[in-house]
Amino acid sequence: MKSCEITVRVRYQETDQMGIVYYSNYFVYFEMGRIEFLRNLGISYAELEDEKVFLAVVDAQCRYRSPAKFDDLLVVNTCITQLKYTRIEFCYEIRRVDEEKLIAEGSTMLACLDGERKPMVIPDKVKKAIDSHH
Amino acid sequence: MKSCEITVRVRYQETDQMGIVYYSNYFVYFEMGRIEFLRNLGISYAELEDEKVFLAVVDAQCRYRSPAKFDDLLVVNTCITQLKYTRIEFCYEIRRVDEEKLIAEGSTMLACLDGERKPMVIPDKVKKAIDSHH
Amino acid sequence: MKSCEITVRVRYQETDQMGIVYYSNYFVYFEMGRIEFLRNLGISYAELEDEKVFLAVVDAQCRYRSPAKFDDLLVVNTCITQLKYTRIEFCYEIRRVDEEKLIAEGSTMLACLDGERKPMVIPDKVKKAIDSHH
Amino acid sequence: MKSCEITVRVRYQETDQMGIVYYSNYFVYFEMGRIEFLRNLGISYAELEDEKVFLAVVDAQCRYRSPAKFDDLLVVNTCITQLKYTRIEFCYEIRRVDEEKLIAEGSTMLACLDGERKPMVIPDKVKKAIDSHH
Repeated sequence: MKSCEITVRVRYQETDQMGIVYYSNYFVYFEMGRIEFLRNLGISYAELEDEKVFLAVVDAQCRYRSPAKFDDLLVVNTCITQLKYTRIEFCYEIRRVDEEKLIAEGSTMLACLDGERKPMVIPDKVKKAIDSHH
Repeated sequence: MKSCEITVRVRYQETDQMGIVYYSNYFVYFEMGRIEFLRNLGISYAELEDEKVFLAVVDAQCRYRSPAKFDDLLVVNTCITQLKYTRIEFCYEIRRVDEEKLIAEGSTMLACLDGERKPMVIPDKVKKAIDSHH
Repeated sequence: MKSCEITVRVRYQETDQMGIVYYSNYFVYFEMGRIEFLRNLGISYAELEDEKVFLAVVDAQCRYRSPAKFDDLLVVNTCITQLKYTRIEFCYEIRRVDEEKLIAEGSTMLACLDGERKPMVIPDKVKKAIDSHH
Repeated sequence: MKSCEITVRVRYQETDQMGIVYYSNYFVYFEMGRIEFLRNLGISYAELEDEKVFLAVVDAQCRYRSPAKFDDLLVVNTCITQLKYTRIEFCYEIRRVDEEKLIAEGSTMLACLDGERKPMVIPDKVKKAIDSHH
């Protein structure tokens, strides 16, 4: 499975008084990673929601290897590790640009929900776009 | 006009690497102040939105007098300074509990919007609740 | 091990356009839970940092069972599940007040760091306070 | 005075249940704008803080003209409107890419502080960089 790379500049707002990126913000970087991963497949998540298809996080985890700091230029690497009938698992790795050292790695399981927020099978166009991406 | 007091404990997440509360978070405290101000008048903002009445911020300002820090117990004092046909202006003062020194003061103008996000006259029950609060 | 309960009112800022609490915010609730857990043991985390003792998150996870919404009054239940030489694991459960249904549950592993952000043994006073809490 | 343009993609995390960008987030966009404005002048704000020069917000305001939405690609236009001995005023305009309609406009006054967070005169290299930018 090919992965998708985005770069994110750490905002001052994302630091805390320990002088590093506050831990919950990595999940925001993950979200940005999966939105761009989908866009690379030709899927706009904004349009998906307009069509009453929602991807809601049901499980999230992150391991923090080394702190990111203000103004760091980060690379978020996103890939899909599982594709089930109603769920997609994304995994992520975050590094500084041009560095090999891992800053954080994590994963999120997303459930596909319809307009009434009930589980639904992942729409065909999403499934096909993911399958053809290998 | 009577004011409404709430207390807020500063979260670690709200600090930045300067070791103080990041400036945009005061607007979140303001939001909490006005929600509780309305609740004190018998108005649940959550219910108001269920009835397709929205209060959207059209103008916001804050003067930062002295920094708040992690774990500070803050008092947010909220009052209404203007009540127009379609708009309400709230003003706010933030201090540490049992201190007179001002940490921040600000104001927000809110426009009343309907379900299509078009301007609407403030509902009578809101207007009456505010008027009877003097 | 006794647990510590805090209540948190969901802020408008914490919602997203799905109409529910955005997923990274649960980690902020977790942080509030562990700060109050420590305070209940007589330990001020703010003072700990003044003494150059830092607790940094090295691993975090959350399972989302049922969405929290704006204005919900949540109960965050925090307990300690592991106490090692240099690490503490906290676990958390979040419910609405007076409801049994789980909204979210998770855990975080924290590493004890010194002023140079190097691993250090958890200070005796912290260890004793936790041990005596059984 | 030349202005500096940056583009920002609206994150899902930045939306609220009204389906638009939550109002305090515009101040985060403003912060990003002024960091890049300074970088364009050859000034790294991260390095400035390493040299114990801090720019702290003492006043902030924003007028919200039209809501930004998830996934919008925004342009933040930043310029300097006042340069005093110890203070700098930045102003900002936010639009969607390739649109003239204003989404938000605002300003922030920043005070220059030293390592003890006392007011200090703006360092010469900052002043010169700003002056030469006309």
